[in-house]
Amino acid sequence: MNKETIDKVLKFRDDRNWKQFHNPKDLAISISLEAAELLEVFQWSAEDVNCDDKKDKIVEELADVVNYCILMADACGLDLDDIVSKKIDMNNEKYPVEKAYGCKEKYTELKGR
Amino acid sequence: MNKETIDKVLKFRDDRNWKQFHNPKDLAISISLEAAELLEVFQWSAEDVNCDDKKDKIVEELADVVNYCILMADACGLDLDDIVSKKIDMNNEKYPVEKAYGCKEKYTELKGR
Amino acid sequence: MNKETIDKVLKFRDDRNWKQFHNPKDLAISISLEAAELLEVFQWSAEDVNCDDKKDKIVEELADVVNYCILMADACGLDLDDIVSKKIDMNNEKYPVEKAYGCKEKYTELKGR
Amino acid sequence: MNKETIDKVLKFRDDRNWKQFHNPKDLAISISLEAAELLEVFQWSAEDVNCDDKKDKIVEELADVVNYCILMADACGLDLDDIVSKKIDMNNEKYPVEKAYGCKEKYTELKGR
Repeated sequence: MNKETIDKVLKFRDDRNWKQFHNPKDLAISISLEAAELLEVFQWSAEDVNCDDKKDKIVEELADVVNYCILMADACGLDLDDIVSKKIDMNNEKYPVEKAYGCKEKYTELKGR
Repeated sequence: MNKETIDKVLKFRDDRNWKQFHNPKDLAISISLEAAELLEVFQWSAEDVNCDDKKDKIVEELADVVNYCILMADACGLDLDDIVSKKIDMNNEKYPVEKAYGCKEKYTELKGR
Repeated sequence: MNKETIDKVLKFRDDRNWKQFHNPKDLAISISLEAAELLEVFQWSAEDVNCDDKKDKIVEELADVVNYCILMADACGLDLDDIVSKKIDMNNEKYPVEKAYGCKEKYTELKGR
Repeated sequence: MNKETIDKVLKFRDDRNWKQFHNPKDLAISISLEAAELLEVFQWSAEDVNCDDKKDKIVEELADVVNYCILMADACGLDLDDIVSKKIDMNNEKYPVEKAYGCKEKYTELKGR
């Protein structure tokens, strides 16, 4: 995330003295709760629903998920860009292109190919 | 997110021709599933568990959540830094410092103060 | 739930002396985690996927969700049949048939009709 | 679940002609969403929060989770008491008392004992 975004999220937290509540377990709960609010946008929707119909709600809820991810990263001394980049490197091993191309199975199912 | 991170995530997806599966509803489901895997790290843990005990798992699962957030943003033409920044602006209205300082209630509960 | 089922679930817990871990917060987390494992069965699936294709996994994960609901009910002194029955009575008010027939909107959206 | 409870849930659904929306994928999503609403009751709460403080909300949200489990079972031709009972039998193998007594690790972690 850009430094300005992170600083803005942390300033919001610290202006309100909310860091005291932000233990990793409750932050993980919060990420799940916001993820559910994002998923709720699509409850009963057809798979081909497009983003435009529900743009405002998607924007609002996705922002909440990422907001808590930034707070979790700060609580655990992590850099989100760094951990995502390293996870992609790891996934490049788990899902080699020659096995994964065009397939949606999890790597455990790809292993046999 | 940094442009390099986003490009890396999208390249991983496109090398494998996986964009075809990435409709917003299934991406929202995926964010929820990864959020649950992160939460599972803390199942049965005391609230004062610190990040160090479970660092590797937290890193892995948090990266997966953010990875899908990047994919969701791309599917809906959104910029994560931009939407988070605007949400903070909105929250500054919902949770004014003078009402929210040191309190964990949701804004609906703060409204009466 | 039938008394035999409930007794079986509680005996399993008590044989292993696991009640000590079953505070309501961690039980609520557990219900969420099992719900996510059930949802994972349908990740990337078309909406018209039918139960038969994935029967074994659905059975396994749905059983886990209900198992934790039974444990939560026991921890809070609740009867699942009783609370579900009363909720339906409440929902009969929220979603009157004349407004709700054939519509999938939440009651807040139905209120205006 | 008692037959009266199940019949009441299904009648509520059928009076409103809502079965058309109840494909297994969306029901699984619904179970997750209701599980999140139950978990939200405990967001920021201490682990030793007891049920009485939050009884009404717990009752309401737990009822919603179970309501959707009943609907899922009906959609897939399952009996909740039956599948829970069989899952306990399976868990009796996975978590033998002599290995699991007083321990909260998952069975994969117990296997080495």
